[in-house]
Amino acid sequence: MSPEPIAIVTTGGTIDKAYFDSLSTYQVGETMVASLLRVARVTHPFKVVELLRKDSLELTDDDREQLRATVAGIDSHRVVITHGTDTMTDSAAVLATIPGKTIVLTGALAPARFAESDATFNLGMAFAATQTLAPGVYIAMNGQVFRGDAVRKDRQQGQFVSR
Amino acid sequence: MSPEPIAIVTTGGTIDKAYFDSLSTYQVGETMVASLLRVARVTHPFKVVELLRKDSLELTDDDREQLRATVAGIDSHRVVITHGTDTMTDSAAVLATIPGKTIVLTGALAPARFAESDATFNLGMAFAATQTLAPGVYIAMNGQVFRGDAVRKDRQQGQFVSR
Amino acid sequence: MSPEPIAIVTTGGTIDKAYFDSLSTYQVGETMVASLLRVARVTHPFKVVELLRKDSLELTDDDREQLRATVAGIDSHRVVITHGTDTMTDSAAVLATIPGKTIVLTGALAPARFAESDATFNLGMAFAATQTLAPGVYIAMNGQVFRGDAVRKDRQQGQFVSR
Amino acid sequence: MSPEPIAIVTTGGTIDKAYFDSLSTYQVGETMVASLLRVARVTHPFKVVELLRKDSLELTDDDREQLRATVAGIDSHRVVITHGTDTMTDSAAVLATIPGKTIVLTGALAPARFAESDATFNLGMAFAATQTLAPGVYIAMNGQVFRGDAVRKDRQQGQFVSR
Repeated sequence: MSPEPIAIVTTGGTIDKAYFDSLSTYQVGETMVASLLRVARVTHPFKVVELLRKDSLELTDDDREQLRATVAGIDSHRVVITHGTDTMTDSAAVLATIPGKTIVLTGALAPARFAESDATFNLGMAFAATQTLAPGVYIAMNGQVFRGDAVRKDRQQGQFVSR
Repeated sequence: MSPEPIAIVTTGGTIDKAYFDSLSTYQVGETMVASLLRVARVTHPFKVVELLRKDSLELTDDDREQLRATVAGIDSHRVVITHGTDTMTDSAAVLATIPGKTIVLTGALAPARFAESDATFNLGMAFAATQTLAPGVYIAMNGQVFRGDAVRKDRQQGQFVSR
Repeated sequence: MSPEPIAIVTTGGTIDKAYFDSLSTYQVGETMVASLLRVARVTHPFKVVELLRKDSLELTDDDREQLRATVAGIDSHRVVITHGTDTMTDSAAVLATIPGKTIVLTGALAPARFAESDATFNLGMAFAATQTLAPGVYIAMNGQVFRGDAVRKDRQQGQFVSR
Repeated sequence: MSPEPIAIVTTGGTIDKAYFDSLSTYQVGETMVASLLRVARVTHPFKVVELLRKDSLELTDDDREQLRATVAGIDSHRVVITHGTDTMTDSAAVLATIPGKTIVLTGALAPARFAESDATFNLGMAFAATQTLAPGVYIAMNGQVFRGDAVRKDRQQGQFVSR
């Protein structure tokens, strides 16, 4: 029997940052998730839901409520969310009220479009963690799978640490 | 408290294939694992043990016994093994006798040195799975975490499938 | 006899844009030129002069005069300049007064740190053009070697065209 | 007026080597040239002619005669040839009888499919050299544009040197 599809909800963040030469600026571009999964030769069923394209510092309470409602309504028990790193733990807190789903947030400290980025590794961690963990909310960053309520971003160091 | 270091034992396989122009041939080169973990900004403690540099079709019974003894003797409960894909399940069977460790085998269908490879994603999956699963032997490939005794490589399709 | 070293003067621009997660912004970072030449296995002698780290829209008349003086004073007849694309032709005009040197400006429309960038190809073009052309000022972009006074950037299209 | 299209004739070699997991072997795959030119945002007109897919040690006299006839018959004065490095100078000698065309041979010491390859830089050099040089046969490798009859490959060192 084929496993249940994994839902991947994208909200923006550094992982999907693109560089727009005409404006000499970066912005969240089209999500790289499907491209990364193709290169990774993923045959596990999945579906990508592009929900938002925002820097996580710009996410509002309404955005988080929309994210919560979307994840709650998704017809899958296994959900990966790509998200900006600065407020990833805030969204994790909001999602903690959803019962019966294994939700893993991840993102990147360098854009997936870079030759050297943590995006692919992180997505791999999240993809595995959502298959292997009990229902709850988790964050996969810096080579570690954290419980969503037991981690913070150390912005000075540019890394996630236990708290 | 810092988490227990993850041990990564490398045995060769496509993941570490390099191209040697002087011989016009691909062979297993220096392992890319440490480089991939650096790019992934992994801060979780780990140690890399370069054990073998072989195509997995060339692994002998002695090689597998050496692998088993090495993993059994490693001072960590969480072990990732990079391995050629063609006989990955054979090694998984040999490792199944080791109690009390979460062992995840992974590898790649395209060399890690390629711009487009499944190596980084797979390593991310294995890194997460070894943190999140109960003791036992697992294989992480093609976006899926399999039990080591419940998977085979479909060589025609070039992918791992449940059996 | 070994050929005369090629001087590469870097001034910033998109080619060297890096992404700084702590600021959620792109800025000119350390130049990628030496790294690109290493990957390209360049054995032709060269020296890199990091002069400026500016977006080319921020270059002042003083900056251009400093660039002109630096290039004029360099002990080589073959000079490559990496430069932001928006005012590359303005700098070409200022450099046109330097006699006896083959000067080729180049840059990139996508940062060299991206997996998909025109930086390496453009640097290759400039490196060849400075070896093969008579003294004068040239621009190498979009697969074409232009005379410095016969080209403009079409910002709408994001490409260089003859004028 | 638009410049005359550059013809790119591909013959195989390391530049186009792919890795085939099902055979655990490398072979010349589909040419990467069009993909490299797309990433390089080349707007200069060009056409790609896939002629051969051979390791250059396997090229026969007949192959070289076919290459000569193809290049002689192409409706363009500017021709780039991608070629294995081991017998590049042999083909250069055969092509030297073609009058009125600027022919630049290039290739790579590491496959273009690698994250770290000299392919893109070399193709950029060849693309520029064919626009800027007088009719004749040239080789662009290791950051240098050589006359076709004044260069050899030092196989021990894995690089092209003047002779």
